[in-house]
Amino acid sequence: MPTARPDSALAFSLADATALLARTPAVLDVWLRGLSDDWLRANEGGESWSPYDVLGHFIHGEKTDWIPRLRRMLEYGTSLPFDKFDRFAQFRDSEGKSAGDLLDEFARLRGESLAELAVLAVDDAALDRRGRHPELGEVTARELLATWVAHDLDHLMQVARVLAHRHASEVGPWRRYLRIVSGQPG
Amino acid sequence: MPTARPDSALAFSLADATALLARTPAVLDVWLRGLSDDWLRANEGGESWSPYDVLGHFIHGEKTDWIPRLRRMLEYGTSLPFDKFDRFAQFRDSEGKSAGDLLDEFARLRGESLAELAVLAVDDAALDRRGRHPELGEVTARELLATWVAHDLDHLMQVARVLAHRHASEVGPWRRYLRIVSGQPG
Repeated sequence: MPTARPDSALAFSLADATALLARTPAVLDVWLRGLSDDWLRANEGGESWSPYDVLGHFIHGEKTDWIPRLRRMLEYGTSLPFDKFDRFAQFRDSEGKSAGDLLDEFARLRGESLAELAVLAVDDAALDRRGRHPELGEVTARELLATWVAHDLDHLMQVARVLAHRHASEVGPWRRYLRIVSGQPG
Repeated sequence: MPTARPDSALAFSLADATALLARTPAVLDVWLRGLSDDWLRANEGGESWSPYDVLGHFIHGEKTDWIPRLRRMLEYGTSLPFDKFDRFAQFRDSEGKSAGDLLDEFARLRGESLAELAVLAVDDAALDRRGRHPELGEVTARELLATWVAHDLDHLMQVARVLAHRHASEVGPWRRYLRIVSGQPG
């Protein structure tokens, strides 16, 4: 059992991390599949991302980020840095695909990632292995896997925020109670 | 069709609002049902809420906030203010219930709320009707319904943030890329 800390942050648990990673495609599916483009293509202005863009970003992460970097780390340690991650790949790769296509593709790829993670049988010693991030320097496998979970949640938070943005000007005086609209820190 | 605005915010659409409101219980269900208490009871420290607390808050909203206030507004206009909303009711009402119980109850109540909303057959004229909030003063039905959607999304965002908090100290140098962990504004 992880040791409880006063602020309720808990030590990393691979089983608990995997439980959450496995759910993300289904969360996005029930949330977004079949919504109108007014929701799916809405963004927060400027170059900000829509829920549709976020789906493409998740897909690119499965292809090039999480498991490929974990493998690199376990094979080469810090001697061969990770490839750089392309934060804009989805604008090219998602072309011509529907949101439903992207949801299907993400679910399939995430399933494959977690199957491969199970095969890698990452134990405590492996969690301490180190790799080299091209910008951040040395990182551990535990940090990579914790970041995978936090990254999922970061973009689920983003989807909520982008969807809320659409009605930001319609909530009237309730604005002050809604952090998602007012931008007040948590 | 709503008129597109430069910042991609769009005029309120009851059909689109309802589409999103109908999904919230399923989103929470696939996200949270069966997760360990290490996830469900985690919070952000102090008096902050856990995902379990948020579920109880959603339930109390269905019982006392959205549809009851809409009805009050349509029946009494501004002459009879809304009852105050109890932001802490869930700490009493959720006692002894599992997260699964709360997910079931929320799904049932949300279904009833949306069925009642359909019966009320809110048209454009009704969206302009006014009521009186005990603290915010005059508000419109459109503002109430837009706030219902934004409130759902606000708490979905909170669930993501609370879950991410658990691994906040495990992500190492990636912290700077993760707004959900670093607290950087969007």
